[in-house]
Amino acid sequence: MAVDHALQQLERLLISIADSAVPLLTETSQHILGAGGKRVRPRLLLLAYQAAGGQDFDEAIPLAAAVEIIHTATLVHDDINDNGTLRRGRETVNSRWGGTFALLTGDYLFTRTYELMAPYSTELNLILAKASTALVEGETMQIQAAREGTFDTQTYFEIISRKTAALFVAAAELGATAAKAPAEHVRALSDYAFNLGIAFQLIDDVLDLAADSSQLGKNAGIDIAQGRGIAVAIQGNSGGATGSVPVAEAENDISPEALQQSILRGATVEQAIAKGRSKAEEFARRAVEALNVLPPSPAVDELRDLARLVVERDH
Amino acid sequence: MAVDHALQQLERLLISIADSAVPLLTETSQHILGAGGKRVRPRLLLLAYQAAGGQDFDEAIPLAAAVEIIHTATLVHDDINDNGTLRRGRETVNSRWGGTFALLTGDYLFTRTYELMAPYSTELNLILAKASTALVEGETMQIQAAREGTFDTQTYFEIISRKTAALFVAAAELGATAAKAPAEHVRALSDYAFNLGIAFQLIDDVLDLAADSSQLGKNAGIDIAQGRGIAVAIQGNSGGATGSVPVAEAENDISPEALQQSILRGATVEQAIAKGRSKAEEFARRAVEALNVLPPSPAVDELRDLARLVVERDH
Repeated sequence: MAVDHALQQLERLLISIADSAVPLLTETSQHILGAGGKRVRPRLLLLAYQAAGGQDFDEAIPLAAAVEIIHTATLVHDDINDNGTLRRGRETVNSRWGGTFALLTGDYLFTRTYELMAPYSTELNLILAKASTALVEGETMQIQAAREGTFDTQTYFEIISRKTAALFVAAAELGATAAKAPAEHVRALSDYAFNLGIAFQLIDDVLDLAADSSQLGKNAGIDIAQGRGIAVAIQGNSGGATGSVPVAEAENDISPEALQQSILRGATVEQAIAKGRSKAEEFARRAVEALNVLPPSPAVDELRDLARLVVERDH
Repeated sequence: MAVDHALQQLERLLISIADSAVPLLTETSQHILGAGGKRVRPRLLLLAYQAAGGQDFDEAIPLAAAVEIIHTATLVHDDINDNGTLRRGRETVNSRWGGTFALLTGDYLFTRTYELMAPYSTELNLILAKASTALVEGETMQIQAAREGTFDTQTYFEIISRKTAALFVAAAELGATAAKAPAEHVRALSDYAFNLGIAFQLIDDVLDLAADSSQLGKNAGIDIAQGRGIAVAIQGNSGGATGSVPVAEAENDISPEALQQSILRGATVEQAIAKGRSKAEEFARRAVEALNVLPPSPAVDELRDLARLVVERDH
């Protein structure tokens, strides 16, 4: 079975997992899970599984779903905290159903993932549980650093290691471990995934500066409004917290240029974009290098392609 | 080891689980986990374990902690939705650190529980995972019914079965299953716990009407303000949603009597209290009857006492 076919099965599984005894939760969960998205994490998991010699996609697909649902749960909760209105090209759950039901939808997605993972081994459950904790810690560090004006380059890397790379690493380790890969191969895929995750987040932050909301399918320009992201990391936000500026305000009421300049203090957005892209390319190169340990296979080739796609994407 | 001694170890475990790489999360988690609380669910789990013949409390204590942390996570999130200011005699996380960090604290407690449970069997993980989903579903049903004015007696029982009794059932089943009890004994303890959970919630709702905040260590009078609870269930709230009335407003700005009468429409608060108490006693009796299947033991006696305490408590 090709990965693309497995990803189609994944979509069906995601929709069936959204099914709740409470119709409202089914509706909210399907709204966000059914909206597509890039599915980078499940693709990574399935390719790592294949690259590590895994043969039975039926075993790996629920793991891929679990990783995607954890990611989606954090998006639903982040959109409450950020007042985001657009996600995956749709209105956010927060915007459409309000903060209370968005909070409960995120919780529901967490508990459903926990149910989905219960049949798997302790080892696999620990990988995903620890990554989930890291995501929450990374998000907390980010909001705190933005509010307290301590968002520097080092903090930025600590944050994105937790809030993004940790789940990429978990995806690779889940796939490789489920395929019973030797420790050296699990390690290589884990290294690949860490570097890929960092590259992915750097490009995410570049696109937040460079693209518009309709292109991204989510609110653009949100990072500077919240006192975070690559541009803020380069120059620091010690001028003070901007986290209290709601997105709508940042997009409509305040001139984006004025806001950016107040934070960038000298560095141009173009410089931040260039730095972000160059760093992302560096991490993508490291990701690809980590793959050299693995025996050549079509799946390894696809992982190389994925690293290129992550850096070259425009949304 | 007596259950009380095991509960002391549980307190230490709860504090150690709060420990995060992000000091803010350690602080918020310890604030709520270290505030005490009745610990009814972990006590129930440990007694069920003992009543089912379990000998090694070291095996059962982390399970008891997991149940208590899931419960605590839902309290932290509920306090965001209810604008609660007081919980376990302390300021709520929401009130002290704001909604964003309260949301992340609840998420953190969920993911830490998932980590804590990873070493246990699929069977035990499924019990807790399904109960966690039921809690979220019950809370969602409650808010929706209160807003839509469909809070009648039947809905009320469906809601409290999910939002409260489900975790009581999980506590008993986790304890009994970990102790490798025969299916008949697991079933008896599960029945006991379901009825105990319903009785517990009925008394909670009675106290919400009858007691004051300082006695409860949490905001009193919140149920009617939110268009829910036993009083609303008896008379229905089809007059319309009151869920949008914030607690502070209900307690300070609107006459509580006027608000109650607008919802009770004829039934007095005293009638609702009497009905709630009488129903709670009925469910507590059923709980105690379910224990008859079990061989007599000090633990079974303590479970009987627990049913009495749950009904007679004043906070």
